[in-house]
Amino acid sequence: MDDATTLMTSLSEQECWVRLRNNEMGRLAVAVDGRPDIFPVNYFASGSSILFRTAGGTKFDDVTVNHAVAFEVDHFDQDGGWSIVVRGTAKPLTTPAEIADAESAPLKPWIPTDKPNFVRIDVEVVTGRAVVFALDPRHEGTL
Amino acid sequence: MDDATTLMTSLSEQECWVRLRNNEMGRLAVAVDGRPDIFPVNYFASGSSILFRTAGGTKFDDVTVNHAVAFEVDHFDQDGGWSIVVRGTAKPLTTPAEIADAESAPLKPWIPTDKPNFVRIDVEVVTGRAVVFALDPRHEGTL
Repeated sequence: MDDATTLMTSLSEQECWVRLRNNEMGRLAVAVDGRPDIFPVNYFASGSSILFRTAGGTKFDDVTVNHAVAFEVDHFDQDGGWSIVVRGTAKPLTTPAEIADAESAPLKPWIPTDKPNFVRIDVEVVTGRAVVFALDPRHEGTL
Repeated sequence: MDDATTLMTSLSEQECWVRLRNNEMGRLAVAVDGRPDIFPVNYFASGSSILFRTAGGTKFDDVTVNHAVAFEVDHFDQDGGWSIVVRGTAKPLTTPAEIADAESAPLKPWIPTDKPNFVRIDVEVVTGRAVVFALDPRHEGTL
């Protein structure tokens, strides 16, 4: 590593899914009338799908379901870290089989409700990168 | 705490800024032609402003600067956590005094460059919440 620069590497799609499956908190970005908004969500990654819950009828439900979303999971410490971004469309689960399957997933509710909606991201693209932070060449020693 | 529900509390604006100042990695959400996108960023919170760097001329710079953004910082573990969301507009720093001040901030570059642009979020609103995860009442014991 050249310690005067930041070292960034791309992660393969397979590496991205391993990290998605090994974590459970992410952030969902949505666009509401052209303005971005962002929400932390507890999720469950199984196979190549991302599953989370909404409470039906909430603003979060309104702006998420059936809309384009970007979903991010990361881990950082002082030396660097990694970030995975999933882009796709949030789709409600509708069939009894899908819902029964989702109900067995270890999803923690943010909002107490006994009538959750389950939402799956129909994934279009997954990208990931890892970074090692380094000294800014203009400020050696300041970090 | 009622361990059959999730316990959520709002954080005051002052509490939000304390947590923003004590952290350095966040996620920036933008809307690009109505579609959301999300990027991890290293930031510096000073007073009531959020500062980060872009590499001029990049896609990230294009979709961020002078646009509405949402910016999120959080911390979670298995028991719960907190999340702060800042909404506002990303503005480039233009005056020599602003840029000189920004150059002394401990900002780690994601993309090696010796010609960074400094961007400040003109903050419109800051909201925060803390959550204690709990058992889903329908699935006691599954978490």
